[in-house]
Amino acid sequence: MGNFPVRLLTEGISSMLKLGELARIINAELIGDPSLEVRRAQPFDLASEGDVTLALEKRYVSRINESQATGIIVGAPISGGTKNQLVARNPKLAFARAIEALHKTEYRPTGISNDLIAGEGTVLGKELSIHPRVTIGRDAVIGDRVTLHSGAVIGDGCRMGDDTVIHANVSIYSDCEIGRRVIINSGTVIGADGFGFVADEEGRQLKLLQLGRVRVEDDCEIGANCTIDRGGFGETILRRGVKLDNLVHVGHNCDIGEDTVVAAMSGFSGGTRVGRRCVIAGQVGTAHHVSIGDEVTITGGAAIIKDVPAGKVMSGMIPARDHNAWRRSQVLYSKLPELAERLRTLEKTVESLAPPSGDREA
Amino acid sequence: MGNFPVRLLTEGISSMLKLGELARIINAELIGDPSLEVRRAQPFDLASEGDVTLALEKRYVSRINESQATGIIVGAPISGGTKNQLVARNPKLAFARAIEALHKTEYRPTGISNDLIAGEGTVLGKELSIHPRVTIGRDAVIGDRVTLHSGAVIGDGCRMGDDTVIHANVSIYSDCEIGRRVIINSGTVIGADGFGFVADEEGRQLKLLQLGRVRVEDDCEIGANCTIDRGGFGETILRRGVKLDNLVHVGHNCDIGEDTVVAAMSGFSGGTRVGRRCVIAGQVGTAHHVSIGDEVTITGGAAIIKDVPAGKVMSGMIPARDHNAWRRSQVLYSKLPELAERLRTLEKTVESLAPPSGDREA
Amino acid sequence: MGNFPVRLLTEGISSMLKLGELARIINAELIGDPSLEVRRAQPFDLASEGDVTLALEKRYVSRINESQATGIIVGAPISGGTKNQLVARNPKLAFARAIEALHKTEYRPTGISNDLIAGEGTVLGKELSIHPRVTIGRDAVIGDRVTLHSGAVIGDGCRMGDDTVIHANVSIYSDCEIGRRVIINSGTVIGADGFGFVADEEGRQLKLLQLGRVRVEDDCEIGANCTIDRGGFGETILRRGVKLDNLVHVGHNCDIGEDTVVAAMSGFSGGTRVGRRCVIAGQVGTAHHVSIGDEVTITGGAAIIKDVPAGKVMSGMIPARDHNAWRRSQVLYSKLPELAERLRTLEKTVESLAPPSGDREA
Repeated sequence: MGNFPVRLLTEGISSMLKLGELARIINAELIGDPSLEVRRAQPFDLASEGDVTLALEKRYVSRINESQATGIIVGAPISGGTKNQLVARNPKLAFARAIEALHKTEYRPTGISNDLIAGEGTVLGKELSIHPRVTIGRDAVIGDRVTLHSGAVIGDGCRMGDDTVIHANVSIYSDCEIGRRVIINSGTVIGADGFGFVADEEGRQLKLLQLGRVRVEDDCEIGANCTIDRGGFGETILRRGVKLDNLVHVGHNCDIGEDTVVAAMSGFSGGTRVGRRCVIAGQVGTAHHVSIGDEVTITGGAAIIKDVPAGKVMSGMIPARDHNAWRRSQVLYSKLPELAERLRTLEKTVESLAPPSGDREA
Repeated sequence: MGNFPVRLLTEGISSMLKLGELARIINAELIGDPSLEVRRAQPFDLASEGDVTLALEKRYVSRINESQATGIIVGAPISGGTKNQLVARNPKLAFARAIEALHKTEYRPTGISNDLIAGEGTVLGKELSIHPRVTIGRDAVIGDRVTLHSGAVIGDGCRMGDDTVIHANVSIYSDCEIGRRVIINSGTVIGADGFGFVADEEGRQLKLLQLGRVRVEDDCEIGANCTIDRGGFGETILRRGVKLDNLVHVGHNCDIGEDTVVAAMSGFSGGTRVGRRCVIAGQVGTAHHVSIGDEVTITGGAAIIKDVPAGKVMSGMIPARDHNAWRRSQVLYSKLPELAERLRTLEKTVESLAPPSGDREA
Repeated sequence: MGNFPVRLLTEGISSMLKLGELARIINAELIGDPSLEVRRAQPFDLASEGDVTLALEKRYVSRINESQATGIIVGAPISGGTKNQLVARNPKLAFARAIEALHKTEYRPTGISNDLIAGEGTVLGKELSIHPRVTIGRDAVIGDRVTLHSGAVIGDGCRMGDDTVIHANVSIYSDCEIGRRVIINSGTVIGADGFGFVADEEGRQLKLLQLGRVRVEDDCEIGANCTIDRGGFGETILRRGVKLDNLVHVGHNCDIGEDTVVAAMSGFSGGTRVGRRCVIAGQVGTAHHVSIGDEVTITGGAAIIKDVPAGKVMSGMIPARDHNAWRRSQVLYSKLPELAERLRTLEKTVESLAPPSGDREA
């Protein structure tokens, strides 16, 4: 058996904080005893002594006196609440910060596995954690404190910023640029050719060579088994802070705006532009070259086929129903033209029957 | 070139059985000669002498006397059928058993490739088949007769039961638990972080640390390029016997019930609960935290946005039609509010025109 | 650090051509100076001196005199156009050929990495480019000038034609056949078992052993993270020239016709037959065993649940709209049976009110 660098578990480890310190860190007002100690963040139903928890929904708020948690994050002071309350303007954000304060482990480099294969001209940063069976091409630049998990393949000429984490079996094609503090989950493919073909005189599909690249800016997180294609010309861009869930497809020359979040299984056709701070649910699709403004919300399964102005909420999916009820609606959906025609005919008939409204009064 | 453990082909190999033995194995009543020999299972149109086949659909049943197959599995005795009939209550199940009886090969361990990389504290079972280029982290436990194909990466602290098969380039993050007789196909990712973020005061997305894990119970089969996220707190669970097709997404803290089958490209948002023995077709999606009862059927493409009681059949997709017909329906769909308003107006007008129904009789 | 074969960048490199030569290569008529030199193909907005570009849409055609490009491909001579015009019957095809003529690099073998693991009986062609960390099973046949990128795992008994490129972390199961000049992008899985199960007497799912294989014919291109399942019996086939985008699923025993293109995230259920030269957009799904004729177009998100004759254009998706407008339509969609009933009632009432049409004339 070969060597293996020491890797610390990030799970199951926690720090200790006094409630007073925690309140400061998460920007909450403490109603209670600042000297009590907490060691874990836990969901409401599982929290016990030594834990901090969150009472966000009404059903939890109404039960806070039943909780064994040492500290409870709430959105407003609960009158009659006998527990230590941490009152925060945005309780979910405060809880996220509490989880981080108690459970985030410090980065510790594990070093470079001695089986690393890296091509000529590649420059490696310092304090790295390169696991076994990582392959890097030529002329790549890897920043400081980067973690590369086993099976990761990094192409020629890629650049990768500090503190980035590439999980197992990620594939990055040549010449892509990955920013700082980026997380790319397993199985994701960055920089494959965009889907560009044109039929020739005999109906065969000729490939449009894809000469561009992918740029993933700082603080992006990309889920597992995503595909981010390189630009045809120019770049496909995920801007700072974009978060993609699993199995998301980003076509060539897409440009996804800062802090936009995209849930699982959504796909962006080539040339889609998405603004900043959009919230895009799962299984959404876009047509080529549509442009979506800032702070747009798109609900699950929606198909975006034309531009969307900033701030809009867009929907389109048909929610599932009882199969027989659905069949009736679905049959009538296909008969809508006929129904509309019958309605029109009826309107004309009724008009011919009804006396003019002036006459009615008479 | 390096070494490579001998691996037996599982395809193209078959046993020989007499029809009488086969009938016993597949729990069918034989009408015919029990001493005849069969060596292969084949579909109806390809079956020839020495084969057993299935006549399930009417078009095959009506043609059984044309078949060259030595044995034909049917759901009821075919009068006038001159062939050797294997009459089974559930012919498809009987055929599945016949395929297994004739074509399933016995497990033979190929040993542990001498390039295995396994971290400190990892315990390996016996009679293993570990192919080249497998990487296992620290403190993992691998059961007996496990097969790990090339490129598989198993994280720290994972536990894997006996007789499980992990295909090439599968990635399993740390601390996941995989049961016995589980099959995980290539490219699948188990245990990546769930998609949990909350916007901070500046609109940046703060990650909710994902502290849970994934538990895949005995006899599950997971297709290729699936993603099963770890729990935020607690577990994401595939219960005993769950079967997932390819490109299925299971979000954090989902709980999929025993013997449920899920076709390709379906996705479950975080916290979805699915009951036992559900049948979920392809490209289905669920909203967060919905609960689906036992023995529910969901047809292709349906979006489940609220709880579904046990035993229901749910549908929602709009089947494709001729483009022009679809356009007319689709335009009218968006005008449904207007059509409904016109219908209401018309009803009022007609009511004002029509004499009360009592008068009509007069 | 280990060795790494020299790999040439395919991007950023270009040839030089005179406009006259280029016109001949791309089959265009040159209106202008044949001796001018071009070195790059560029999109209209980025083209400068020394570039050839494309003016396809009207907004570009109207601005061709503003362009700094040395040559501009157009569909018809532009009167008043002072630039060097390359007039082509199919300008997009001509541009694809120009990109190829200027930017395609000649294949140069990088050799076989000395860490190649290949099983007994495997035969390798000549002039190969086998990158580090490639694993090939037993009894495989690899053609000439094949490129295998790092992390690729090729199963026992696979056959692969000349000039094929397999990207990083692709997994090919045993006994699959890959043609010549095929490109398979990273993360794609070829030959996993089809999804075939049948419930037994206790409701447990029994696996139907999948005994077939996958055949990918010449000139196919398969995107990243696709899944092409092996046949249950017989083959799953991608015929010559099929092009699949990313995250496409092809179920067991599908047969996809020559020169058909399929955009991202579409999925074909088991036994789907697709004709030649079909154009299938993204997120399409098909039911089991449907048959789609030649030259069919299917628009994005459509669900194909029955056979489609040749030449048809099929659609089905509901385009997204403003959320509130969508809710109104969606509520009424579920009330369509009620609306239709009210319409029917109204028609009867009006009929009873209206004099027979003969009377009206009177």
